[in-house]
Amino acid sequence: MDYQALLEQIHDQLRPVIGQGQVANYIPELAGVSPQHFGMAVVQLDGTVHAVGDARVPFSIQSISKLFTLVMALQCEGDALWQRVGREPSGNPFNSLVQLERESGIPRNPFINAGALVLADVLCTRYAVPETAVVDLTRKLAGHEDIHYNRRVAKSERDTAHRNAAMAYFIKSFGNLRNPVPQVLDAYCRHCAIEMNCVDLARAVTLLAHHGVLPRTGERLLSLGAAKRINALMLTCGTYDAAGDFAFSVGLPAKSGVGGGIVALVPGECGVCVWSPGLAPSGNSLAGSLALEHFTTLTGRSIF
Amino acid sequence: MDYQALLEQIHDQLRPVIGQGQVANYIPELAGVSPQHFGMAVVQLDGTVHAVGDARVPFSIQSISKLFTLVMALQCEGDALWQRVGREPSGNPFNSLVQLERESGIPRNPFINAGALVLADVLCTRYAVPETAVVDLTRKLAGHEDIHYNRRVAKSERDTAHRNAAMAYFIKSFGNLRNPVPQVLDAYCRHCAIEMNCVDLARAVTLLAHHGVLPRTGERLLSLGAAKRINALMLTCGTYDAAGDFAFSVGLPAKSGVGGGIVALVPGECGVCVWSPGLAPSGNSLAGSLALEHFTTLTGRSIF
Amino acid sequence: MDYQALLEQIHDQLRPVIGQGQVANYIPELAGVSPQHFGMAVVQLDGTVHAVGDARVPFSIQSISKLFTLVMALQCEGDALWQRVGREPSGNPFNSLVQLERESGIPRNPFINAGALVLADVLCTRYAVPETAVVDLTRKLAGHEDIHYNRRVAKSERDTAHRNAAMAYFIKSFGNLRNPVPQVLDAYCRHCAIEMNCVDLARAVTLLAHHGVLPRTGERLLSLGAAKRINALMLTCGTYDAAGDFAFSVGLPAKSGVGGGIVALVPGECGVCVWSPGLAPSGNSLAGSLALEHFTTLTGRSIF
Amino acid sequence: MDYQALLEQIHDQLRPVIGQGQVANYIPELAGVSPQHFGMAVVQLDGTVHAVGDARVPFSIQSISKLFTLVMALQCEGDALWQRVGREPSGNPFNSLVQLERESGIPRNPFINAGALVLADVLCTRYAVPETAVVDLTRKLAGHEDIHYNRRVAKSERDTAHRNAAMAYFIKSFGNLRNPVPQVLDAYCRHCAIEMNCVDLARAVTLLAHHGVLPRTGERLLSLGAAKRINALMLTCGTYDAAGDFAFSVGLPAKSGVGGGIVALVPGECGVCVWSPGLAPSGNSLAGSLALEHFTTLTGRSIF
Repeated sequence: MDYQALLEQIHDQLRPVIGQGQVANYIPELAGVSPQHFGMAVVQLDGTVHAVGDARVPFSIQSISKLFTLVMALQCEGDALWQRVGREPSGNPFNSLVQLERESGIPRNPFINAGALVLADVLCTRYAVPETAVVDLTRKLAGHEDIHYNRRVAKSERDTAHRNAAMAYFIKSFGNLRNPVPQVLDAYCRHCAIEMNCVDLARAVTLLAHHGVLPRTGERLLSLGAAKRINALMLTCGTYDAAGDFAFSVGLPAKSGVGGGIVALVPGECGVCVWSPGLAPSGNSLAGSLALEHFTTLTGRSIF
Repeated sequence: MDYQALLEQIHDQLRPVIGQGQVANYIPELAGVSPQHFGMAVVQLDGTVHAVGDARVPFSIQSISKLFTLVMALQCEGDALWQRVGREPSGNPFNSLVQLERESGIPRNPFINAGALVLADVLCTRYAVPETAVVDLTRKLAGHEDIHYNRRVAKSERDTAHRNAAMAYFIKSFGNLRNPVPQVLDAYCRHCAIEMNCVDLARAVTLLAHHGVLPRTGERLLSLGAAKRINALMLTCGTYDAAGDFAFSVGLPAKSGVGGGIVALVPGECGVCVWSPGLAPSGNSLAGSLALEHFTTLTGRSIF
Repeated sequence: MDYQALLEQIHDQLRPVIGQGQVANYIPELAGVSPQHFGMAVVQLDGTVHAVGDARVPFSIQSISKLFTLVMALQCEGDALWQRVGREPSGNPFNSLVQLERESGIPRNPFINAGALVLADVLCTRYAVPETAVVDLTRKLAGHEDIHYNRRVAKSERDTAHRNAAMAYFIKSFGNLRNPVPQVLDAYCRHCAIEMNCVDLARAVTLLAHHGVLPRTGERLLSLGAAKRINALMLTCGTYDAAGDFAFSVGLPAKSGVGGGIVALVPGECGVCVWSPGLAPSGNSLAGSLALEHFTTLTGRSIF
Repeated sequence: MDYQALLEQIHDQLRPVIGQGQVANYIPELAGVSPQHFGMAVVQLDGTVHAVGDARVPFSIQSISKLFTLVMALQCEGDALWQRVGREPSGNPFNSLVQLERESGIPRNPFINAGALVLADVLCTRYAVPETAVVDLTRKLAGHEDIHYNRRVAKSERDTAHRNAAMAYFIKSFGNLRNPVPQVLDAYCRHCAIEMNCVDLARAVTLLAHHGVLPRTGERLLSLGAAKRINALMLTCGTYDAAGDFAFSVGLPAKSGVGGGIVALVPGECGVCVWSPGLAPSGNSLAGSLALEHFTTLTGRSIF
């Protein structure tokens, strides 16, 4: 597979749609990003990097951070984690509070905000400075030290996170948060504010494409079972309420963020990341979703 | 892969749990089935059959029929079908009526009852006797003529289908059923009452493992894209509200029925069917789910 | 209190708004009624009648019939009725199906459609031809024989009652309907199609203003307690999802119908009925609601 | 009416049930109150006091405070208040968060917690120390200075108010709280922690029985319309999810609190207060509800 030619072909095909969609605007720091960005990278298990466009421009990873905090929470808690958070698609973007009520404070899955607040709580219990621990993991996965979280983004998100605060206090009312809510929200907002580029992120998810073994070093960070299961969760729950549609049209495990990034992976083969800030109504990058659809059509590499 | 040895190993491992779980009891015809049955079959793309236990005993396929009616509705309508039924997991077993309300009568996906009622309506429009057409498809996929629907089961289901009737009238109130509700319910209940055995069903889903081409004849019944997409739907929506968990623990596209059957498939390789009537609270066969979990663990053949 | 002068004053004040609002249009027979109608009547406990405008023009009583079927169902079942239907406001027009689910098929109160279907079921059990029995009660309350139900309206409603059918089958699935659903729907639609005029209806509710004793004859049809409790139900549940607002601005027990009629009563004093077909978004007659608001402001006769 | 004899009769009749029910136990200060308390008082518009049992023992008024903050918020905002809070029964104790979602952060009525948080926000905007202003109103209504809020109760409630915090942040996310959430919660919890006795409270609600004029001084604190409307709200929304049932069986405007107090009033006649800490599952005082039911049965003084 000539991935470099493929990425260039995808980039060319997508030029007409780059810039379309709505850039996330609930905080000024995200609203100011140009919708014209487009970057895409593939990193193979042997470390070979293929990249086009803005693949080395850092962006706010936002909900993609939930993938990293899930890896860490599983390292902390093992399967006991699944007593505090479920593994089912949430079905409806609007009713997470209803579901929390019905399911007594157990979020449906770790990739909705409610679930990621529980992950953040796990990390607050285990680490004195959880955001530092998460940044350290992203550095290890990316293979270099120049990864940080953006303090202004984190602060802006924290100041406007009324709905996440509502969710956190609601979970707390069921006894499913151990740490003070403000501390959990601080950690959560900092995780979301981590900045990485497409090459970093594509390399990071080779961990999951390689079933839990860090390709660069051969170190096992997750059991085979845990890695496969995270892949399954990405497929069923990774792209907000469009997960069914995404599985249908792309057919790869993926996790998106409102910063416009989407990571995906081909098991046994490679990690992929695409970034373009214009979002579809589902909250997923519009050009990014199409790029991944082209990727599986052209490579025939869907998991189905 | 020595599938025959594998099936025998799985059968041995599961002996302690066969008979556990609750046999579906909402109609007498299902309640009378012995919970001690267990059968499992693998059919490879070249037609080789492997089978253990009661793999040749016919059972009521129930919701597995939704897979066949989906194939037919897609043949009738193509992608226009997706304007009448969605492709997202339903999230909650209890709120399909709520979701219908919120989404103006468009069921979340074709594998929930509401969605299958729309499929039945499509077939009522296209075929004078839709149940005959569905039976014909199952005969073609299984490669023999001895497949029927059980009239007593169909009648029993029809007489007690108050909740499905409620759903159908509700969808009708939004204009998303074209035919009279009683006619749609008749067809739906007859589809559910089709009886097949594990070998038939494992062979039937080789169509999807072979990406839309009937392996026995080489005839293409579905486009590559349509076949892959049905596989994706099975993974995200095929096993009731346990789809996330099933993807997590089994990792194969699958569709279950309350008769205790589950079909699954390994893309490019084989169709699988397991049957054991005792159900877990999720509505999926208890021993059947475990059998498939063993299958992917032992073969390493999950799609992730 | 010079009620006649009062009614004329109200009629004059309302002239600018008569004709506003939306005439119910889900069946042709209702859609064809002129929005320019306005009638109002007061009948005192001694039988004195005061009337203005179209107070003697018959109209479709629609949901006002729920008041009469409640009186009859209470006569049949006594307090045992309250095991099959609740006494609480429904809170939300959109979620009656959700509430039925949560409350296992027990409708919140007898004035929502779900509740009135249970009332109709009670009458189907007790009477061979329940609609005849209901018409007989309205004749007795109105003091003359010329009251009928409109067969074309009943048939039209029956043919389009998909949502009520959904509700009825849903209640049936919980075991809270004893008779076949089509029979219950027939009765329900015929009750709604009864035609009466403002004078008839104002006289009919003097039964409740007189705490269960028919003023014309002195016959007790309901116990004091039952009559007061129906009044309480009218106040808290009688005007769709605007009951709180109606209690707030009018402050009298009342029951409205989408035909544009509203009955109300001043305990110990009189029955009132107003009719004007243009509806507010709440489903209550727009001019009718304002007329009753004027009535309590001018008479000082709210119950608060 | 010999109210004193009446109260003694009611007290005697209720002895067998006093002590039944569940004392509110979510904070230690409430859990420690003896369930054996029972007090009841009637204060007539001319100031005559009738009292039995523990009618002069102070208790935590809890949600009865919503009545006083509503009076004050109406004094601050007039009818503009109704743009920020609704006037409809909430229908379901469990779904206030759902309703907030559906209705964009506008609580259904001022007597559910969500609504009272908006009232507290109005008072936070108007008063530097809102709890002092509320205490001042209760002193004015009761006619003496010895009324305070219990700081330990307020602190305990504040420390465990996770669900109220969730609600407040959720309302804030819709822009319907103007002040910082912690400040609003502080005020809210202090209002709930005010302590008064039955005589104080019965006298306080004579303001509403007298339609907005303080009987003791003749001072008008609310317009006639506003007073009648508060009475209507008490009837439709004053006793949690049992308001329909309460209107049905008692038939008087009333407001209850989980401290076991219930205030009620007979328009034009008297204020009533009963206190007994054992609660029915609805959250209303068990013996208190029965006492009021006896009161209207024996006096014939329901508003219906």
